[in-house]
Amino acid sequence: MSSYNLILIRHGQSQWNQENRFTGWKDIDLSTQGEKEAKKAAESLKKNHLHFDLACTSFLKRAIRTLWIILDEMDQMWIPVIKSWRLNERHYGNLTGLNKKETIEKYGEKQVQLWRRDYKTTPPPLPTSEKNDIDRRYKDLTTIPTGESLEQTKQRVLPFWTTTVNPYLQQGKTVLIAAHGNSIRALIKHIEQLSNEAITKVEIPTGVPVAYTLSKKNLEVREGRKILL
Amino acid sequence: MSSYNLILIRHGQSQWNQENRFTGWKDIDLSTQGEKEAKKAAESLKKNHLHFDLACTSFLKRAIRTLWIILDEMDQMWIPVIKSWRLNERHYGNLTGLNKKETIEKYGEKQVQLWRRDYKTTPPPLPTSEKNDIDRRYKDLTTIPTGESLEQTKQRVLPFWTTTVNPYLQQGKTVLIAAHGNSIRALIKHIEQLSNEAITKVEIPTGVPVAYTLSKKNLEVREGRKILL
Repeated sequence: MSSYNLILIRHGQSQWNQENRFTGWKDIDLSTQGEKEAKKAAESLKKNHLHFDLACTSFLKRAIRTLWIILDEMDQMWIPVIKSWRLNERHYGNLTGLNKKETIEKYGEKQVQLWRRDYKTTPPPLPTSEKNDIDRRYKDLTTIPTGESLEQTKQRVLPFWTTTVNPYLQQGKTVLIAAHGNSIRALIKHIEQLSNEAITKVEIPTGVPVAYTLSKKNLEVREGRKILL
Repeated sequence: MSSYNLILIRHGQSQWNQENRFTGWKDIDLSTQGEKEAKKAAESLKKNHLHFDLACTSFLKRAIRTLWIILDEMDQMWIPVIKSWRLNERHYGNLTGLNKKETIEKYGEKQVQLWRRDYKTTPPPLPTSEKNDIDRRYKDLTTIPTGESLEQTKQRVLPFWTTTVNPYLQQGKTVLIAAHGNSIRALIKHIEQLSNEAITKVEIPTGVPVAYTLSKKNLEVREGRKILL
């Protein structure tokens, strides 16, 4: 039996990861490569004898499908799954859909690097005209983001961590979170208590499980961040 | 917008449906034909413009996969899904795994028909030696069935209906339940207030959505049981 009780996984490569475009809340599916990555992740989780008590994911299909592939391959389709918009990728505002290389050519590498990795920088917001184009999945939100910094992403991820994930971990249960590059970076910053500077250097590859052993008592890190390959 | 607010669907054909074997709680997957049936069901649900607020399913992968295929095809993967052992197929006790034709040859058609369709007849129970072979998904149950009549199935399905499904329906929400021949017959008996005799004649085909419109106030049937093809 594995000693890890928290596994974070960023979804496998999406069609827009492949095309090098900013994705954010746009509901883009996995690429064929991304599906393969999810299967590979399942194999390493199986090798580590992980039996999940709960899985959490976002409202976006690239994360949900990654989770489904893992649960299917591990024969754990029956475990409870909680989906939340709070685990969504950071909202990329008006950068959504743009090619990263073209954006660098237009705005310069320094600005794009700030948008992508700085803790407090927000992307240019979505124009008001697009605000009304609201998917019914977000209709209960009091405010729908139009562009978020990593800091803002962390602020909306943390209530989910505190109210939904923590009670399971504190009972000694094993939790899998299938989410996104920046919602996972937000969680890692919190779990490892990283500085605003330190988190800018953390990159999460697609489809690779990151394992932690957290103490039941105070959820301090006992072991991790370990990459399971 | 469709006026239906409750859709029941029996999973698509499973590998043991195909082999004509009693399945019960055995976690047998869909056949290729069963996957096709689930896709076809999704098409008819799409034609009926159904937007689900909640989906419910059992702990068994033939029902879960049917649901996943439907949510995927309908682009509603993000909706909340609640899984419960209470929606599992009726437990077929010591008949589990037996071929239906061979069982008829051994015990006679009349006895097998009683086991399959009578409301109160229980199958021969699982031998005690097999009781300990408990899957971890059932470890929190106080009593694990070793063979159930349809009546006993209904008794354990109903608390799920009352505490989990009803509150959604009473808020005017639309619910999809992907389950099994007998857990669905149990629900239909309750919803339509059928007699013990009348329910013996109800057969639910695999992979075909059954639609109801229930009044919000008292959940009385306003329209249904309608087959969506």
